[in-house]
Amino acid sequence: MPVLIDSSQALNVSTLLKEIAESSKLVHKIEPGQVYSLSTPVQGIGSLSSASHQELSFVVGPQFLNALSQTLAGVIVLTEEVSQLFEEKFGKAAFVQVITPQPYLLYALLAQWFDLKRQPLAATGVHAMSVVDETAQIDPTAIVEAFVTIGAHAKIAAGVHVKSGCAIAHHVEIGAHTLLQPNVTVYDSVKIGQRCIIHSGAVIGADGFGFAPNPLLGKGAWGKIAQLGSVHIGNDIEIGANTTIDRGALDNTIISNGVKLDNQIMIAHNCMIGEHTAIAACVGVAGSTQIGARCTIGGAAGVSGHLKIADDVHISGGTGVTSNVTEPGRYSGVFPFARHAQWQRNAAVVGQLAQLRKRLRALERVGSATQPSSD
Amino acid sequence: MPVLIDSSQALNVSTLLKEIAESSKLVHKIEPGQVYSLSTPVQGIGSLSSASHQELSFVVGPQFLNALSQTLAGVIVLTEEVSQLFEEKFGKAAFVQVITPQPYLLYALLAQWFDLKRQPLAATGVHAMSVVDETAQIDPTAIVEAFVTIGAHAKIAAGVHVKSGCAIAHHVEIGAHTLLQPNVTVYDSVKIGQRCIIHSGAVIGADGFGFAPNPLLGKGAWGKIAQLGSVHIGNDIEIGANTTIDRGALDNTIISNGVKLDNQIMIAHNCMIGEHTAIAACVGVAGSTQIGARCTIGGAAGVSGHLKIADDVHISGGTGVTSNVTEPGRYSGVFPFARHAQWQRNAAVVGQLAQLRKRLRALERVGSATQPSSD
Amino acid sequence: MPVLIDSSQALNVSTLLKEIAESSKLVHKIEPGQVYSLSTPVQGIGSLSSASHQELSFVVGPQFLNALSQTLAGVIVLTEEVSQLFEEKFGKAAFVQVITPQPYLLYALLAQWFDLKRQPLAATGVHAMSVVDETAQIDPTAIVEAFVTIGAHAKIAAGVHVKSGCAIAHHVEIGAHTLLQPNVTVYDSVKIGQRCIIHSGAVIGADGFGFAPNPLLGKGAWGKIAQLGSVHIGNDIEIGANTTIDRGALDNTIISNGVKLDNQIMIAHNCMIGEHTAIAACVGVAGSTQIGARCTIGGAAGVSGHLKIADDVHISGGTGVTSNVTEPGRYSGVFPFARHAQWQRNAAVVGQLAQLRKRLRALERVGSATQPSSD
Repeated sequence: MPVLIDSSQALNVSTLLKEIAESSKLVHKIEPGQVYSLSTPVQGIGSLSSASHQELSFVVGPQFLNALSQTLAGVIVLTEEVSQLFEEKFGKAAFVQVITPQPYLLYALLAQWFDLKRQPLAATGVHAMSVVDETAQIDPTAIVEAFVTIGAHAKIAAGVHVKSGCAIAHHVEIGAHTLLQPNVTVYDSVKIGQRCIIHSGAVIGADGFGFAPNPLLGKGAWGKIAQLGSVHIGNDIEIGANTTIDRGALDNTIISNGVKLDNQIMIAHNCMIGEHTAIAACVGVAGSTQIGARCTIGGAAGVSGHLKIADDVHISGGTGVTSNVTEPGRYSGVFPFARHAQWQRNAAVVGQLAQLRKRLRALERVGSATQPSSD
Repeated sequence: MPVLIDSSQALNVSTLLKEIAESSKLVHKIEPGQVYSLSTPVQGIGSLSSASHQELSFVVGPQFLNALSQTLAGVIVLTEEVSQLFEEKFGKAAFVQVITPQPYLLYALLAQWFDLKRQPLAATGVHAMSVVDETAQIDPTAIVEAFVTIGAHAKIAAGVHVKSGCAIAHHVEIGAHTLLQPNVTVYDSVKIGQRCIIHSGAVIGADGFGFAPNPLLGKGAWGKIAQLGSVHIGNDIEIGANTTIDRGALDNTIISNGVKLDNQIMIAHNCMIGEHTAIAACVGVAGSTQIGARCTIGGAAGVSGHLKIADDVHISGGTGVTSNVTEPGRYSGVFPFARHAQWQRNAAVVGQLAQLRKRLRALERVGSATQPSSD
Repeated sequence: MPVLIDSSQALNVSTLLKEIAESSKLVHKIEPGQVYSLSTPVQGIGSLSSASHQELSFVVGPQFLNALSQTLAGVIVLTEEVSQLFEEKFGKAAFVQVITPQPYLLYALLAQWFDLKRQPLAATGVHAMSVVDETAQIDPTAIVEAFVTIGAHAKIAAGVHVKSGCAIAHHVEIGAHTLLQPNVTVYDSVKIGQRCIIHSGAVIGADGFGFAPNPLLGKGAWGKIAQLGSVHIGNDIEIGANTTIDRGALDNTIISNGVKLDNQIMIAHNCMIGEHTAIAACVGVAGSTQIGARCTIGGAAGVSGHLKIADDVHISGGTGVTSNVTEPGRYSGVFPFARHAQWQRNAAVVGQLAQLRKRLRALERVGSATQPSSD
């Protein structure tokens, strides 16, 4: 069962839908059920199989008709078509029906409402146990929780919420209504746009990995190249837990508007990620690589450095991208897994493939000498 | 040399073994050595090669006889068999001998004792420089260190130890004797069981990566799906440093009793991990995947989303699991590494494998036309 | 445009070069430009394409002549050769020219100067909102920012800078002039050398992943092996954001002088990393593996446990190293990526490679029966 809001905050379904601006366009009608009436209070959203009578659930298509017949949910968001099919097959429903042509979108909007409701009200202003440099500008509508540090000349805009334990260095700018979950670190001079969400443990603006051999320091020793660039993060971006985005060597690392980054992603210095590109967890992008707009990159994929990936490219999870991708489309490259013994046999042959091809070519010459080409 | 306890805390080996409840069953006898007597104080446990005379070491089998002959350790835990073989070959030992049929288990128990001893005593109660919501329930035997935040309605049970810099959101529940190392973040409504250990930088309950295309926000733009589920973590679970476990979209992400997770693991929303499954570092498990009980997953492996992995499945390190695994056993899938030039030759052929098979089939037809089948 | 220093801090180029000790040897001459004079103030370093007139840039060779002709930078560091080629092709330069045989090295030194300048001065001493055990020894020249905890018997040497939110456990030692960025966690008894930089979210000394089956705790249950070793980190080491280095089981995990670790690297217990080895982001090294000196390991590579990698070994990004490497050289092993449909065809054949070889051998026998060997 998901997290429910307090029963004192619960609304009945028609009042609830009035709270959501877009619902007037989306909801065609609301029908009471055999068991549950329009006055049933709704405390949360559940999956069909786990929802209880205080919860609302949703159905995206007729493939879920049987699951729907077994749900205990008090309210269901569904299409006219599914509603009719259900009544034909199972009779009058126990649950309240919210009829809409776009049940998934309405679910998304309802989920946001419940998500907000479960967050406790936080007082605006700076907590007494935080340390804010006197030259920093904090909008009076911003919330700065305990154990936060904010450095010199930082600018925190209206409605920003910085949760406990965040460290924000000097000259950082954070745009309106951006949320930093606890224990986020933002290095100096980083700019973050509006309405972003940055999850815990993310580190934005640490030094890029830049070293040059310096024999004066010893055989094989590395001299540090100071990283003078910064990170610019646009608007409406989500950055997952423990994701790291390094600052540029000279120019900035750039994350464009609408990008969504999952957890434990590594974006190296001087990368540029195009608008609305979504990257799943554990992906690494090496330095100076440019990824286009509207790309998707599956989990644990890796992209080498100094590459250009076109717009609308979709990389399968686990793929290592080692050269430019100039055309949209889907790209993959993962070694197939198998039972260990079978894998062992096949992997051993991989190490002899070049030789295998040589032997095949030799045989082809023999074959063509023996009889006319079979092509 | 490992960490030693203070000499003032050191015990001699017989007193030490009396401190460990299980030792009466495990220890068959203790024999003084030629050099070290039963009153030799023991300050720590070392490997055979690094232990000094204040340290105890152990031997699991006769393959270490030569190493044993060179150790400087003052006390050795070993089997009767190894003890006799040693005396036959090298004569009377310098070290005290602790004879047991299970030296590795006794080592594990002794190591726990020394580990506890090296931890300084911490005062119970909440540190004055922490921020605890007045509605949170903190057991008086719990320890809450400095710079910790604990949100509304959180419940912290007996003997829990929350180290500095942890952020615990509202409605979190933490079971008895669980330890949170510094700088752990726990999002709202997460439940953690008893006797768990959560290492630094772990983030439990951040939002799952849930987005739906929302063209109203722009071409290719993503709308956020609020994540209303939570994370439920059972008893006796260890979670490694910087590991992230995301909250469910509607239902909960579930980590079952006895699961051991290493560092930098990513468990996506709505996953279920079965009892006593152990996962090595840098593994990613994508959303809604169910992993059975008693599985092991090697380091840097990845498991795709919406899969079911049976009980007692063992995945080799680096393997990408892309389909259900219904049978117990060991599964692998890693591309063999080689000298760069050889790899280059073989990897190039991988890109032509389908064509290679085609040519082979053509040849087989030629061969069977030339002479009768060789099968 | 990169981060600039305040105009009040800007120096003209000749004064600037006097600030850098090595510049007297490196700079052969400084020539005023057609547009910019030697008194032009310099506020930062930019790339050729992004630098503005207040910025200095650099050129490493004649391949950048055309880019140089379009730069807006006020000052350029370049070789005598490039300077002459430029004048022949484009006439007298607008920018000030700093002539040196080693433009990249001079850039690196200048970058360090600007990097230091952009850091605000921090007061030495311990911030009032930090918690330092009374038995810890903090050098008076060290800086301990807010919300830091330092445990019993810790030793913090001269010039160390511990930024906000760091947690330093008991018996930790940190050598002179080492910098800990915000929210670093150091477990007990870890030793860190001089002049190290540890980036945010790094966790040093968490428990190694050590468990032994303990049937007494349940079918398939694991008993914890306490990790009594520590981590020893040498001098001049950089550790990236969210990197984790686990403590040893008995002996220590060892990071040798001059090692550079990028972000999100996992070093398991009892590993030894040799001097000046550089490891790119997202690499995992499993337990007890020894990596030699002066190695480089590309991003997202993995090294299995209990291996020995020789000195001067270079592992390509994404490679899984599963056996010892005894000879210097470059090693690789990545499955080639391709368009999804092509990959699908080839990956399917990988699963039949052993069978493919068998069929080829059968054909070879047929071929050699049909006519004399073609070798």
